[in-house]
Amino acid sequence: MLAERGIVTLEGARAPQMDAVRLPKAREVPEKVLQAAGRENVYTGDEDRVRHANGQNYLDLMALRAGELDHAPDAVIVPEASGQIAGILEACSASGVAVVPFGGGSSVVGGVTPLRGEHESVISLDMASLREIKVDEKSLTAKLGAGLRGPEAETLLGERGFTLGHFPQSFEYATIGGFAATRSAGQSSSGYGRFDSLVSSIRLVTPQGELSTLETPHTSIGPALREVAVGSEGIFGVIPDVDVRIRPLPSARRYEAWIVESFEAGNEIVRRLAQSDRLPTIIRVSDAPETEVNLTMSLPSGAAGKIFKRYLKLRSREGGSLLITGYEGNSSEVHRSRSDVAREIRRGGGVYLGQAAGRGWEKGRFHGPYLREALLDRGVLVETLETAQQWSKHESLYESVRAALEGALAENGMDGIVMCHLSHAYRDGASLYFTVISSQGPDGGVANWPKVKPAACEAIQSAGGTLSHHHATGRDHAPWLGGEIGSTGIEALRTLKERFDPAGIMNPGKLIP
Amino acid sequence: MLAERGIVTLEGARAPQMDAVRLPKAREVPEKVLQAAGRENVYTGDEDRVRHANGQNYLDLMALRAGELDHAPDAVIVPEASGQIAGILEACSASGVAVVPFGGGSSVVGGVTPLRGEHESVISLDMASLREIKVDEKSLTAKLGAGLRGPEAETLLGERGFTLGHFPQSFEYATIGGFAATRSAGQSSSGYGRFDSLVSSIRLVTPQGELSTLETPHTSIGPALREVAVGSEGIFGVIPDVDVRIRPLPSARRYEAWIVESFEAGNEIVRRLAQSDRLPTIIRVSDAPETEVNLTMSLPSGAAGKIFKRYLKLRSREGGSLLITGYEGNSSEVHRSRSDVAREIRRGGGVYLGQAAGRGWEKGRFHGPYLREALLDRGVLVETLETAQQWSKHESLYESVRAALEGALAENGMDGIVMCHLSHAYRDGASLYFTVISSQGPDGGVANWPKVKPAACEAIQSAGGTLSHHHATGRDHAPWLGGEIGSTGIEALRTLKERFDPAGIMNPGKLIP
Repeated sequence: MLAERGIVTLEGARAPQMDAVRLPKAREVPEKVLQAAGRENVYTGDEDRVRHANGQNYLDLMALRAGELDHAPDAVIVPEASGQIAGILEACSASGVAVVPFGGGSSVVGGVTPLRGEHESVISLDMASLREIKVDEKSLTAKLGAGLRGPEAETLLGERGFTLGHFPQSFEYATIGGFAATRSAGQSSSGYGRFDSLVSSIRLVTPQGELSTLETPHTSIGPALREVAVGSEGIFGVIPDVDVRIRPLPSARRYEAWIVESFEAGNEIVRRLAQSDRLPTIIRVSDAPETEVNLTMSLPSGAAGKIFKRYLKLRSREGGSLLITGYEGNSSEVHRSRSDVAREIRRGGGVYLGQAAGRGWEKGRFHGPYLREALLDRGVLVETLETAQQWSKHESLYESVRAALEGALAENGMDGIVMCHLSHAYRDGASLYFTVISSQGPDGGVANWPKVKPAACEAIQSAGGTLSHHHATGRDHAPWLGGEIGSTGIEALRTLKERFDPAGIMNPGKLIP
Repeated sequence: MLAERGIVTLEGARAPQMDAVRLPKAREVPEKVLQAAGRENVYTGDEDRVRHANGQNYLDLMALRAGELDHAPDAVIVPEASGQIAGILEACSASGVAVVPFGGGSSVVGGVTPLRGEHESVISLDMASLREIKVDEKSLTAKLGAGLRGPEAETLLGERGFTLGHFPQSFEYATIGGFAATRSAGQSSSGYGRFDSLVSSIRLVTPQGELSTLETPHTSIGPALREVAVGSEGIFGVIPDVDVRIRPLPSARRYEAWIVESFEAGNEIVRRLAQSDRLPTIIRVSDAPETEVNLTMSLPSGAAGKIFKRYLKLRSREGGSLLITGYEGNSSEVHRSRSDVAREIRRGGGVYLGQAAGRGWEKGRFHGPYLREALLDRGVLVETLETAQQWSKHESLYESVRAALEGALAENGMDGIVMCHLSHAYRDGASLYFTVISSQGPDGGVANWPKVKPAACEAIQSAGGTLSHHHATGRDHAPWLGGEIGSTGIEALRTLKERFDPAGIMNPGKLIP
């Protein structure tokens, strides 16, 4: 399908090659920093530097393919215990070494790119060794080390009968610390909550002392400093561990797919469910282009596929929108929620596609990034961006962003598909997640994408959407930050930054424009 | 009952008298401030000053009774529109006038006491004229002016078919701006959410610019500045309006009472309901002393009362704990929730008392403060304090605070009752609300309470509880703030304060110790 549309341009696949990567010469790590970290925890090998040189946005992945890593760190430091962090930050502050906190390296907004700022050198501070877990079964909370990746955290909790329920697409690589630093949201956010809503308390080790919030379900003692540490994207300090709310492992799960008349009809169904507190664990609606791509990928070819298409045509749902629902809990909860939700979907004109299609989505829920690598290897440009807004502006936000992306692609001679789904629904609104799959255009994707993305950001801000519902700010959204939080907001962040990090070593070039 | 226990000490009632109040001489409002506010919006009459001189804690109310108002404001300014606020703050900054934002005056932690700080004079900035309302029916949100009191907001929303569902005991006086500035929590918080969770966006007018957050269900763009403005208790600036999440007016309501074996048994029932997402709109459990006082107040005397007591005795629930549940929604929601909850309460050993007792609680839900005035008039000391903690520390927190209060009362020769209820339950914990009803002791309540309260604060902090779940910090909790947020936390607040309010005019002496 992509070849037919002229989007796949390479014949053979061209994957990144470690040997072909050119790294900038590493500057030496100052003695003071080596001492604070322990020499055995400092890594300067090529592969270590390459693996910490970038996140996972389109330009990051293309730079790896081009073998040009302008921003590799001079060294990677892996603290053995959280107690070392304060000393490392102090030594780095004193020696002019920039510090980039690093978890899974899955930022898609340039959040972990090792920029030096005004400093002599830059290190990537990898949390990989901080993998503590301590469960409070009575309170349903757990202290989790920042370096725990999604699957390891789930395994350790699962052994005790619990789950965090946090499954973003980056789940397999991303870490607890990264989830907190970026306000991550998982695919099951309607059931389990966004990561920030799961945080009951947090520690933030800054170059000027440690901020530690009280572990409590709630407090009214002044501004919520927890919410200053959560989402701080590494610019104030390092998050060594997080106390989170957990749940019993669900004993029953059910995933289903439906086809609704249109994206708008699907959005209305989700809004009605959200506003009557009837959201299932997972709910997402694809627009027509995303539905077409999904069905093309998942439909069996031949007879079965034809029968399916005929089925949809008969019910006038050809060209409709795919709606995925997921239910997790004990069997009576799943049954009850499913019956509430199915009634509402049918009332909204939905046609049931069955559990097989739902399980298909569930099985492939973390595959997107891998598929993307394969497409990138074949010369396709694949990138995503997302936003959120209240229901009253939901449709106009969707139309504006889609038009802006399509317009920018056309302007730059790129043939592409702009597709979108609604996910992360709330009583007052929802997020919209856009995926662009396109040819690179005459000037190449690396030259073109930086012309396309701003068009989307501007459309989002004009339509009143947020720059990001769950990808965070990083380097990529920083230029637009003022348009969302205003100059007083930026000054507030800058003031805190100067207080926590007077030497300006923490993650330079991120968040604050 | 109170007389029997030697707690009521005055024969006749002695209510506060406006004529007997001695006010400090008012300092003149600088010309610049008069111009910025408009002379017609500046009030300097005695009654205006008296009505803005204090909040509603025990010492505030006793000062009024003694006729000694050391801290009355020099003037009360009532801005006509939010557009005036920036100019007023600028003029006050330039003229050395402290500013105390004022809503309903219902702070119980000294949050609106007009302290001058280092300034020449102090004004109370009353939001009474900011009463805008604008409803977005599709998104279920509303913009509400800071000066709207609880009942007015509910009436205006109710006319359009909606409710905010925020009913703290201060509801009849407190305002939207005050709810936001103090992170208020209402009696129906399990069903409708705490006020801070209802805020979708907020404006904060500081002496150095306006902070305004995007109206969106959620954003991952950096630290949540909304959570810096919410809970800011007037020390950074003034909140002129708040965008909040609203709900359709419930068509069905049901309130019930139960008796459970003990406070511990009741707490366990609530924990099980919370951790299985089955909390009703309202749930609260009284300990044995509070149950006794409540039943004494509400039971009919004579035969009916005797029958009731026999009923409890028969079921071995004498000396048990009162549990109140409330259900609001449409009739099927109420029915479903009630059947879930009743099953769990019965399983936990609860005995049903019926709807009349539940309605009795509902009818009197805002009466506490009025009853307290009547008791104060009769020489009784009545004061409340509250905290919250995770379930695993819930019982030890309860025991510690109760023991600390009882010990401090005894030490100061006061005869009293310490009673407590659980309210505001979460998956990970709940809040505990203590009420002290006692004689004033030989030195008098005004001398004694400042010796009792610290014992409770210290017990709370030793047991790992928060200084306040929903009363905020104000002047009263400020000395303990460092014990909760640490010196780095205090420095973070101080840094923001210096940025937003370099002249230090905003609500001096509050929040930051």
